[in-house]
Amino acid sequence: MKRVGFIFLLLLILLVSPVMASAEREVVYQTSTIDALLAGLYDGKVSLAALKQHGDFGLGTFDRLDGEMVMLEDDIYQITADGAVHLMTSGTTPFAAVTFFDKDRSAAIGREKSFAELTAYLDRIIATKNRFYAIRIDGYFKYIKARSVPAQSKPYPKLVEVTAHQTVFEFTDIKGTLVGLRCPYYVKGVNVPGYHFHFISDDRKRGGHVLDCVIERGLAMLDETSQFHLFLPKDTVFDAMDFEADGPGDLKKVE
Amino acid sequence: MKRVGFIFLLLLILLVSPVMASAEREVVYQTSTIDALLAGLYDGKVSLAALKQHGDFGLGTFDRLDGEMVMLEDDIYQITADGAVHLMTSGTTPFAAVTFFDKDRSAAIGREKSFAELTAYLDRIIATKNRFYAIRIDGYFKYIKARSVPAQSKPYPKLVEVTAHQTVFEFTDIKGTLVGLRCPYYVKGVNVPGYHFHFISDDRKRGGHVLDCVIERGLAMLDETSQFHLFLPKDTVFDAMDFEADGPGDLKKVE
Repeated sequence: MKRVGFIFLLLLILLVSPVMASAEREVVYQTSTIDALLAGLYDGKVSLAALKQHGDFGLGTFDRLDGEMVMLEDDIYQITADGAVHLMTSGTTPFAAVTFFDKDRSAAIGREKSFAELTAYLDRIIATKNRFYAIRIDGYFKYIKARSVPAQSKPYPKLVEVTAHQTVFEFTDIKGTLVGLRCPYYVKGVNVPGYHFHFISDDRKRGGHVLDCVIERGLAMLDETSQFHLFLPKDTVFDAMDFEADGPGDLKKVE
Repeated sequence: MKRVGFIFLLLLILLVSPVMASAEREVVYQTSTIDALLAGLYDGKVSLAALKQHGDFGLGTFDRLDGEMVMLEDDIYQITADGAVHLMTSGTTPFAAVTFFDKDRSAAIGREKSFAELTAYLDRIIATKNRFYAIRIDGYFKYIKARSVPAQSKPYPKLVEVTAHQTVFEFTDIKGTLVGLRCPYYVKGVNVPGYHFHFISDDRKRGGHVLDCVIERGLAMLDETSQFHLFLPKDTVFDAMDFEADGPGDLKKVE
């Protein structure tokens, strides 16, 4: 009888634990804030392994601002300023936002769309501007203009000074994926309000932070997310910042 | 042997589960946003029982804006506009922020302090303005000026219209606890930047949202918290709001 009790209890725990875990999938998990990144806090504070505990999809950057991060299907890619793409199995990040991608809806993109037309289209198919959306767009792109940034040395310059010298790539007729996030207006200062996309090609050899694009056809997949979790790693430089005095920041100039 | 295996596995799970749970204690958990509350979204969306899963300490309000909430030592108190204090075992909240209170440091308050002197003192003993602090101050107060608000009917007026007609209480020579939260500047729009205190008397018969106070002596206890979790309940009214057009809101007028 005791053994039956144990087995029952064990089964109960095993049954309940995935339910508890699945509740955690509908969260955008972010480390540090966009205002901290704008201010030049580029030291990696969270390991990529730790980041993967909180998502399989997302974007960010790496220690010392060394390139653009794409997280897609649980792989983390680094697009460095020389245009190369590296599959990352170790390293750290100063800023990233990730979630477990569970498609809530999808919409075929059958007609050519500029970047502005694409975001206007997404605005029409999302249910609200007041929740978080992870957005995956697999497609065939006539044009992609993307950028990356090189690793910085201390004392770190502000992000607006780095992006003034960013490397810009232009790709034509390329298959790939836009990995994006749409944040509500009210998280201004914490993340980027509106759309923010990084790109990676199907062959995983091209990518970057998207500045412009023309999509010919594709499939947009949306994951609506109603929880946002902000993690602030130990960081004496972050602690000493005066985000209020620094005003609204240079977000417009770096996007 | 099989039984030994089961027992070992069971012990392992029992050992690991509190560790997993304790990691969740260092989070300020919030339902909805301050801008939504300012705009008049007073419908309770989260049960008090669900809220208690995420903390034993905090503040907020109740369905239909029916009074001020104090959560202290895992009890939830409602201070209604008539000045009465009710221990709540059921009900819902449209807006609350809670955490599990684990004291990181404490400081004796040995000299009389005005409200401005008290917050200036707290500013000196916190490590940074850029993390979240749950603040508990047990003390003897020469003076407390507190307010509460009555339950509203639809169509709900904005919070600034409600607080224009708030009930103000004045207490003198009263023992009790300030239950407070200090939020970083960058969460503006999501919660109240800076200090936000509710009061409850030792005899649990008086309380409210603190507008002013003079503390004679007491003990300030701080819980520094580096994670913030925002939960957005299903709410079609919230989804339809235009927080950007509504501008910075009326926060100054209602505090």
